[in-house]
Amino acid sequence: MTLLNLLASRSSRMKASEIRELLKLLDQPDIISFAGGIPDPSLFPAEAIGDAYQAVLGGTDAGAALQYQVSEGFLPLRKWLAAHMGKLGVQCDEGNIFITSGSQQALDYLGKLFLSPGDTALVTWPTYLGALQAFNAYEPRYDRLNTAGGNMTPEAYRAAAAANGGKVKFAYLVPDFANPTGNTLDTKQREAVLDLAGELDIAVIEDAAYRALRYDGEGVPPILALDCARSGGIDHARTLYCGSFSKILSPGMRVGWVCAPRHVVEKLVLMKQASDLHSPSINQMVMHRVAETVFDAQADKLIGAYRKRRDALLGALEANMPDGISWSRPDGGMFVWLTLPEGTDATELLARSVKEARVAFVPGNAFYADGTGRNTLRMSFTLADDRAVNEGVPRLAKLLRG
Amino acid sequence: MTLLNLLASRSSRMKASEIRELLKLLDQPDIISFAGGIPDPSLFPAEAIGDAYQAVLGGTDAGAALQYQVSEGFLPLRKWLAAHMGKLGVQCDEGNIFITSGSQQALDYLGKLFLSPGDTALVTWPTYLGALQAFNAYEPRYDRLNTAGGNMTPEAYRAAAAANGGKVKFAYLVPDFANPTGNTLDTKQREAVLDLAGELDIAVIEDAAYRALRYDGEGVPPILALDCARSGGIDHARTLYCGSFSKILSPGMRVGWVCAPRHVVEKLVLMKQASDLHSPSINQMVMHRVAETVFDAQADKLIGAYRKRRDALLGALEANMPDGISWSRPDGGMFVWLTLPEGTDATELLARSVKEARVAFVPGNAFYADGTGRNTLRMSFTLADDRAVNEGVPRLAKLLRG
Repeated sequence: MTLLNLLASRSSRMKASEIRELLKLLDQPDIISFAGGIPDPSLFPAEAIGDAYQAVLGGTDAGAALQYQVSEGFLPLRKWLAAHMGKLGVQCDEGNIFITSGSQQALDYLGKLFLSPGDTALVTWPTYLGALQAFNAYEPRYDRLNTAGGNMTPEAYRAAAAANGGKVKFAYLVPDFANPTGNTLDTKQREAVLDLAGELDIAVIEDAAYRALRYDGEGVPPILALDCARSGGIDHARTLYCGSFSKILSPGMRVGWVCAPRHVVEKLVLMKQASDLHSPSINQMVMHRVAETVFDAQADKLIGAYRKRRDALLGALEANMPDGISWSRPDGGMFVWLTLPEGTDATELLARSVKEARVAFVPGNAFYADGTGRNTLRMSFTLADDRAVNEGVPRLAKLLRG
Repeated sequence: MTLLNLLASRSSRMKASEIRELLKLLDQPDIISFAGGIPDPSLFPAEAIGDAYQAVLGGTDAGAALQYQVSEGFLPLRKWLAAHMGKLGVQCDEGNIFITSGSQQALDYLGKLFLSPGDTALVTWPTYLGALQAFNAYEPRYDRLNTAGGNMTPEAYRAAAAANGGKVKFAYLVPDFANPTGNTLDTKQREAVLDLAGELDIAVIEDAAYRALRYDGEGVPPILALDCARSGGIDHARTLYCGSFSKILSPGMRVGWVCAPRHVVEKLVLMKQASDLHSPSINQMVMHRVAETVFDAQADKLIGAYRKRRDALLGALEANMPDGISWSRPDGGMFVWLTLPEGTDATELLARSVKEARVAFVPGNAFYADGTGRNTLRMSFTLADDRAVNEGVPRLAKLLRG
């Protein structure tokens, strides 16, 4: 999600002329940006990826790499992913793996599969903006999923959905180092989501895009693994796990996957056949080679680099931010989430910040399905260098002190 | 479209056990297949593509190639395509070009953009099966577009659509060397489609997937070019041109485009942002390099190779087929379309042909929106070698003689 796209999608709230002015300012090199939720391109395993393209196109696989492919995806990659999911505690085989063009496509297809206009999707407040955009195409209503507990009763969720002329269809969440908050659900919270989903008899969409980027502490089992344990195996589970290579290997190759019960995979395959036939054959074959050889080493490399940047950003916030501002302390991922004093509008702050402090971030209310959260903002640390931390944060803090 | 997918999608008409048996037979190397509508992988420009991947990943573009990209697509590729469309008689700029993951995705997005359940789409009888699959997701009704003339009046089309609770939204067609018939519309027929679309005030979706594969005669202007001439320029046109690199350079890289009025491109960009963010950055950058350097030479190479195969297939049909069977004589593309005597069922024939003659083809009725055309079948000549022509056609002809 680029800031440009974000701002463009917010055109109903900002005037077009304001957006144009802001974009012009963001193009200037002296702007320090914490906005883009993107990996550091200087850390991409470009050499390994280049070698893999060369190996695939230089050998007997060249014809298959450039030819049409089955809609479910390249079989050796699906087998590798089934084994990968096994290491995360999800026993499955290639029949449970469906290759997507990035995990955004998984969200689009799952929205299409489950939602009719007027149905209800449960999401956290805030949640990943791209998920709201994907689901919005199918005209749902949103209700709030509170992962810290204190949810409505199943009856109340059902009644609210029925009053809108639809049903509750799924709960969507990012349980690891969430976009935008950076927060992670512990096992008990994950079990509680499954309890609620069981009582409502709905699917759970587990968006695990950031899962491999853990900087502190122990990994928590995927919701899908907990679900398999209670339901008796993946083909009986209600959880649909959306994985992505974008944060570890490359977002530009657009390879993600869904790990799900076989009957869901079969429906997604028919959907993909009608929608774009298949994800690029060559990228799937290359991703398989690269994943086999450098996935773990590349994750370790990113963890080392991003952990330092997270620590530097958290340290700078601690040293500079005035009282009345709080922020998340994520164990992984890409984002720190700031809560400003009530009444502060982060969208207005962004316009001032870009002009006066030359610092950019993403205003938080875009991540709220109900448009609240105006006093929140998201900072990404994946591209935060020394200058960003040592100059950008003090400048933003100065602005906030007024 | 692979035969496997085709047969799977036909499961309601054939018994599952029949399909399984058929698929087992198709896996065997002695089967001669005219079924798959795919390019010959031995003719792919694998070396040029490999060099381009190496150049992109070995240079300063590597970061951008592996990073997120704007939803509308890689700007230099869009500029190249605008110039390419200019050579076809369509004056436009990059604001009229939208990059898709193959032209199948264009059909999906245009279906989503135009169709609400119950609306009417006009298609030829028969038409591209993948278009029907893409549109079916949006639950339209189909009415018949007769490109040889003799269409219903606009009033009659409108009344039939209204009786179904919707409106006529677009006409979809493959004007050059159509899949499945191989037929090409002349300029007069193209103008007639525009006349009808104008009277109905609907869009025209021009699927130009095979356009560059002309073996005989002079090129006919794209419908979009004729539309621009009468409407006063592309931004006033009603025609949406869907292009593809799949038939000339590589289907496995999944790069296609839409050339359309700016206001349509803008809607497609928002749709793509919500659906898969963007097509793979690296494939777009590589396709740009390859298109710039080898597009014309590669088209010439394929034209030379496929023309010979078409001629050989047509010659073998002439020499072997019994009376009462007719077929198309395409000026380009990939397909010859056979019409069998009334009462012959090509699906039943396929089952017998695979078992007794060891020859496969695609039964024609899958290409008919109303399920008729049972006495038709499609043969692809792109993979037809000497053995296919000299042994396969006589064996099929023998079976047809009974």
